[in-house]
Parts: sequence; C-alpha cells; structure tokens
Amino acid sequence: MISNSLRDVYKKKTHNSRKLYNDSVKIFPGGISHNIRFFRPYPFFVNKATNKHLIDVDGNRYVDYWMGHWALILGHSPNVVVKKLDRQIRQGTLYGTANDISIKLGETIKKSIPISELLRFCTTGSEATMYAIRIARAVTKKRIICKTIGGWHGFNTDLMQSVNYPFEIDEGVGMTGREGDFVESIPFNDLDRSIRLLESVKDDLACIIIEPLLGGGGCIPADINFLKGLEEYCKRNDILFILDEIVTGFRLNFGSVSSLYHLNPDIITLGKIVGGGLPIGVVCGKKEIMKVANPVENRNKEQLCYIGGGTFSSNPLTMTAGYATLDYISKNRQTVYNKINKLGDIARNDLKKLFSDYGLKTEVTGLGSLFLTHFLSNKVNEIKNANDVALSDNDTLTKYHFSLMTKYGIFFLPHKMGAISIVHDVKDIQSLINATEKIIESDILTIMKN
Amino acid sequence: MISNSLRDVYKKKTHNSRKLYNDSVKIFPGGISHNIRFFRPYPFFVNKATNKHLIDVDGNRYVDYWMGHWALILGHSPNVVVKKLDRQIRQGTLYGTANDISIKLGETIKKSIPISELLRFCTTGSEATMYAIRIARAVTKKRIICKTIGGWHGFNTDLMQSVNYPFEIDEGVGMTGREGDFVESIPFNDLDRSIRLLESVKDDLACIIIEPLLGGGGCIPADINFLKGLEEYCKRNDILFILDEIVTGFRLNFGSVSSLYHLNPDIITLGKIVGGGLPIGVVCGKKEIMKVANPVENRNKEQLCYIGGGTFSSNPLTMTAGYATLDYISKNRQTVYNKINKLGDIARNDLKKLFSDYGLKTEVTGLGSLFLTHFLSNKVNEIKNANDVALSDNDTLTKYHFSLMTKYGIFFLPHKMGAISIVHDVKDIQSLINATEKIIESDILTIMKN
Repeated sequence: MISNSLRDVYKKKTHNSRKLYNDSVKIFPGGISHNIRFFRPYPFFVNKATNKHLIDVDGNRYVDYWMGHWALILGHSPNVVVKKLDRQIRQGTLYGTANDISIKLGETIKKSIPISELLRFCTTGSEATMYAIRIARAVTKKRIICKTIGGWHGFNTDLMQSVNYPFEIDEGVGMTGREGDFVESIPFNDLDRSIRLLESVKDDLACIIIEPLLGGGGCIPADINFLKGLEEYCKRNDILFILDEIVTGFRLNFGSVSSLYHLNPDIITLGKIVGGGLPIGVVCGKKEIMKVANPVENRNKEQLCYIGGGTFSSNPLTMTAGYATLDYISKNRQTVYNKINKLGDIARNDLKKLFSDYGLKTEVTGLGSLFLTHFLSNKVNEIKNANDVALSDNDTLTKYHFSLMTKYGIFFLPHKMGAISIVHDVKDIQSLINATEKIIESDILTIMKN
Repeated sequence: MISNSLRDVYKKKTHNSRKLYNDSVKIFPGGISHNIRFFRPYPFFVNKATNKHLIDVDGNRYVDYWMGHWALILGHSPNVVVKKLDRQIRQGTLYGTANDISIKLGETIKKSIPISELLRFCTTGSEATMYAIRIARAVTKKRIICKTIGGWHGFNTDLMQSVNYPFEIDEGVGMTGREGDFVESIPFNDLDRSIRLLESVKDDLACIIIEPLLGGGGCIPADINFLKGLEEYCKRNDILFILDEIVTGFRLNFGSVSSLYHLNPDIITLGKIVGGGLPIGVVCGKKEIMKVANPVENRNKEQLCYIGGGTFSSNPLTMTAGYATLDYISKNRQTVYNKINKLGDIARNDLKKLFSDYGLKTEVTGLGSLFLTHFLSNKVNEIKNANDVALSDNDTLTKYHFSLMTKYGIFFLPHKMGAISIVHDVKDIQSLINATEKIIESDILTIMKN
C-alpha cells in the first residue's frame, strides 16, 4: 500500500483533480473511460499535453512515459503533425468517402512492411485484431484461434480470453461462456508446450495471433525462436500466422518486427503510431489472403469476408496525422530509432544496475524504447511471461510509479510499461534514474528491501 | 444498369479519381476502406469538404447528403468546431488519461438523455453496441441477444447476424457458424410475430437491441407501438431494452428518441453526431445497470464486466469536437431541429408528390432530417422492413443516385439514405426536386416508367 503521507502529498497537489474526479464518478462508471486509467486514490485530470509533458488541471507537469498508450512516438502535439492538422480541420474531418490522403498513408505502410500487400483501415486496434482473425477463419475455413496467455488484443469478444490473471477464469461477466470453445491459449515463450497444445487442435486451427512483445501483459519480448517456431508450425499446417504489432509497429524500426526478425507472417495488425495520435487500426496482409475481404470481387455472402470499415475508417484527420508522422520518421529514421532505442537501452541498463547496487531483486524488461521494471517476489524469480508479471511484487511497483509521479513529476501509468519518444532526452532518463535512487533511499521501498 | 453514356460523363469528370482508384486497388482490397463506399465504375476521391460540399480531386463539387455517414449535423468543418479544434490540436490529441473535457461532453449527454445516468466513452459505434450487449448479458446472467432483421449495429462478431439480404444466410465467411446460437432475429415492425419468436427463447434472453429507425437497413422508422410493445415485453420478463441511437441520437431532437416517444430503455448507444465529426461510440444506461462495468467497485473477474475503453476512448480531440457540436446545438436547438426536420418534411413530401405526378410507384421513407427514396417493383408494393428494401427496384435507385451525382452534383452514397444538416437550405431541397424531375423526364428512369 502507498503510505498515507505520500497519498497526502498527492492529494494536496491535485486538489482540482479530486473535485473533477468527484464529478466524474457521477458520469462514468468508476469515473474513467478505460479501466486501466484508474489508480488510487484517484487519477489526476489532464487538460493539456505538449512535447514530453502532461499538464494536469492543478498545473502539475509530468514527464510522460505513458505517451498516449505508447502511441505518441513524436511526443504530444508535435509541430509536424499540428501543421498538417491545422489545415485539415478546415477541410473536413470526416468525408465518409474514398480520399486521396488514405492512399498516401496506405502506400507508406505498404512500402515499409513487406507482407503488407493489401490493407484495410479501421478505427481501433480492437477492430483490427477482430477483423484479422475473421479473415483467417475465412481463408482457412477453420475456426480455432490461438493466442498466448496474457496476450492482449483489445476488448473484442473473440479475443477476450486468458488476458488477465487468473488466466483460466473467464474475462469478466457478460460473455456467453462459449467464446472459449474456439480459442486455444498457449504459454508465452514456451515453444515445446505450445506446440503440444496446438497439436490437439490443429485440424481446426485457423491462426496464431501473437504480439512480438507482450504489451499489456508486461513488456516481455518474445524469443525470436519462439516466434520462428510458431511461424514454421503454421506454414507446415496451413495455419495463418498473425503478428499483432499494434504496439510494436513503427516503434522499433520503420515498419514491422518481421523485418528485424526475418519473419514472414500472413497478416499484421497495426494501430497507435500509424495514426499519429488519432484513432486508427489497420489490417495488413498478403494479397492472396486479404482478397477475401474485397467486396468488388466477392459479391455474395458465400465468398466475401465482411470486415469494417466503420464510419470513421480512413477519415482524413487520422490519415493526415498518420501520414505526417510516418513521413517525418521516414525522413529521419536513423536519428529517430537510434535515439529512442539507445535511450531505452540506457534506461534498462541503468535501472538494472541501480536496483542491483541496492540489493533489490528486479528485472527491467523491454525492447527498443519500451521498458518496465518488475519487482521480484518470493513467488517469482524471473520474468518470462504474464503469469510471472502477475505474481511479482506489484505493490512495490505501485509505490514506485506513484512516488515517481507524486514526488518527481515522472509519469508512468501505474503498472504499465513506459515508452520513450523523440522528445525525451538523455537528461530525462538521468532524472528517472536519480528519482529512482532517491525513492530507493527513502523509506518507500524499504518494505521490499527488508 | 447505368447507361454507358452516363458512365462516360462520370468518367470524363473524374479523370483524377480514376487514376487514384487504380492506385487504390493496389493498396486496399477493392480500393476502399469501407465496403459501402465502393460504387461502379469507381468512387470519386475527395480531397476537401466544407459546409455542405464535398470537393473531389478533379475539382467537382457535390452538395453532400451522405454527410460523413450521417454524422455531420453541422456540415463539414463548421466554424464552431474548427475554432475549438484549432486550440486542441496544439494541446494534445491523445492524453491517454482522465481529462476535464470528457466531463463536459459526458455531462451534456447525461443531462439531455434521461436514462443516461452513467456512460462509457469508446471509439466506434461497433464497439458501443458490443459493450452494450456484454453489459446486458452480465446484468441479466442470460445469453441470447434479440435484434431485428436488417438491423445494423456495426461489424462486431456478436451482432453480425441477419444484416444483409438474404437475411437467413450467415453474414459472409469467416465466422465460426455458432455466433447465431445466441442471436434471435425478429421481423421489424411486426410486434405479434416478434413476441411469438421471443416467447420461445425468453428464459435465456438478455436483451433486445433495436434502432428506432432502420438506418443501414433502409431508412424505415420503427412504429412507436412496436417499440413500446417490445419495451413492455422486456420489462415483464427481466430483459434489457437497448435503443441503438448511433444514427438517431441528437439527430431528431436534442437527446434521444426515447424522450420523443416516451420510452424508458435500459441502455442507449450513441456515436456519430456526439463526436462532432471525430471517432466516437458511447454506451449510456441506468446506474443500476452500468455499475457492473465499474472497475473500482468490482475488483475481480466474477463481478466485473470488462468493456473498453480502448487507446482512443475519451481522447481530447473527439471530446472537444463533440462538446463544441452539442454546445452549439444546445444553444440553438429550436432553430436547428425546426430547420432540418422541416427540410426533411419538404424533401419527403415534394419527392413523393413528384414521383406520383409522373406515375412512378415509389415510397420516400424517413423521419426528421433523414430520407430515402425506394422504387417499388413487382415484388414489393410497400416498404415496411429491410426485406422490402432489398426486393425493391434497386437498379433504378442506383441510376437515380448516380444521375444526381454525375449530372447535378448532388451526392447520396448510392442506395443510402440522405441526412440534411443545418448548412442545407430550402434552395438545396428545391434543387434536388428539380434535378429529380429532370432525371424522370430524361430517359434515365424510362425503363421503370414503362
């Protein structure tokens, strides 16, 4: 638990947020519009964000490592995006029709991701993964979807299985109880056990969908051999291999992890970064696969796989922000990825060393510009999968993130991994390390130390 | 079929669009990001929209009645929205946190819709309806969802049943074939038959979800007695009554159809207008119901109904555009609804009279500012439901909409209802009537006349 004195510091600094939260619970269940955005005693309320900062309604400034659910690789409201949006808001936010700017963003994605021969824009990541597995079922004429335990692919009904600990229990109430009949969950980074589980369902297995780095599940990179092994298994058995790159797409390199790892997935889902801070989801895939969703060629229900779309798909505002973002990164890709990946390395290494110097058992996981600290516990000695994350010392992680936020103005959404953007610099990482050291030295983490 | 000469006129006017479409099919399945946006020979490509006009890449201007899937009640890029967006794009597009502007939009919706005691923002209408039925299942502990034949609630897997003609066949390939086990489809506007069908499943019936006006299904208002009858049936049998007002919310009055019709639904879904032209979905409902989605009070999986949310939920850009829109309408509500509803009446009445004067058997359906012409056929004598719409003379409707677009610069998405916004005026409706008369008098509709 967070100490009362620290909580008091927070309350004193966030007087206006507290008032707004009291209003907010009368409007929204739990006072929020996304479960993970709540933290105790109440979340602060933002009314402005620029570059690397969130500024709350009490005027507190936070160096932001949450970065819009890790979407804002150029930081908040970067000039290159604002400039283009400035024009576009005057020229239409929602045409509801085919438009030229969609082609520019589509082409950019297509050029940078080899398997992206055809793609469909939709509006959210949850939609993108739902459509990806629908396409997989359509193409393979099989029904079962394989996902990893702790894998997070959004709130769609089809993939709401084995997301949160305890993983074997249904993801909350309100499901029919039968959704799981067509989902097989495999242990992350354990190829042998995964293959054994798949063997029993392979005749009806449509696809494997997997994040190259467990995002919501705890910032754990997939072993390359795990990914390669699953991909090979797919190719051998007429199963589609889907990389869910909503988090990793354009985050680690200009394009997809598949290029870095020499993978050859059939479908890739994108979101976050490619929308430039506006709502987006994308399903990309090989032509032979994606053509099942072509309504011009497949004119009846027995042929066509219906996927959205939606009212807001390829809206010119998102397309503009997405294209401005990718265009900027494309022209500066060496600088961008060198910088943020290097800062990620520094953050992980320096945090590890610091915790180790103080005799604290931690792991700092991640890849490129993504990182998260895990406090190990008597239940967990290493972090290999989402189960380990769930069983590690999350109370200490809460205290750590809450202290960073309250005393040092450094914001991680409690328990969630951080994302470095190009507006962060080495001084920010140094400040994070310094703040962490002070937190270790104060009494906040003493329970753990003892 | 559209005549070759008319098609040639279109091709001549849309040279740049044709080139773009040729590029587009290399990027997107069918060249589009939403199935209904395709029409033959190819859709024009928009690169600007202001007030009532779409302007395509060849410089053609169209008076737009599609209005961003009927979302843009103030027209394209209205000043009141642009002014606020202008500021907001510089202050963050995606905080990923609680924020003050969400409260303003939330409060406005809450005040204007009586049953909206608590609400959750998400990003699309498809998400809103998916979460609404999840909540219904959670609260009732029952599994079956009732929808109407031809009812359209977005692309989510749960509700992709009986959407398109032939309604009894699965909605395309890529489903497990078992989704329908938990969906009961009832005939629109036929209360007796509907109740008989519901009787057989009522013990496991979680909710009825219904549009007060069939939108995608053909612009057909539900009879008030049909809605009231279903609602009463729900109240008697512990079934939740859900009004899907993604199209009708804030379209016919400032708030919900439930106020106009004295209905008392348990949940209402919103989208489109309340986002002010940016991506949004909303689930609103009574407190006793919505509280199942409160993650602060329900801390474990056996209690909590998980609903999104999503990365983009309550993002400050959408919240700003939505609030600016509702705030403007609120202050001018008499003027706004009087104007657009009256223009809708004029459009429906004058079109009806015109077609009748020429001896053409049509119906012009709709409500308030929404309207659609149906050409009757030897299969269909009146328009009561989506089946009638599917069996009416859609070839003639295609020709009519295509002629309006090509020869008179008046845009309806082919086959889809039109939406009048406050930037339309009586002269626009008169131009529509005049153009329609010329089309009738030309040879374009002669096939039907004979």
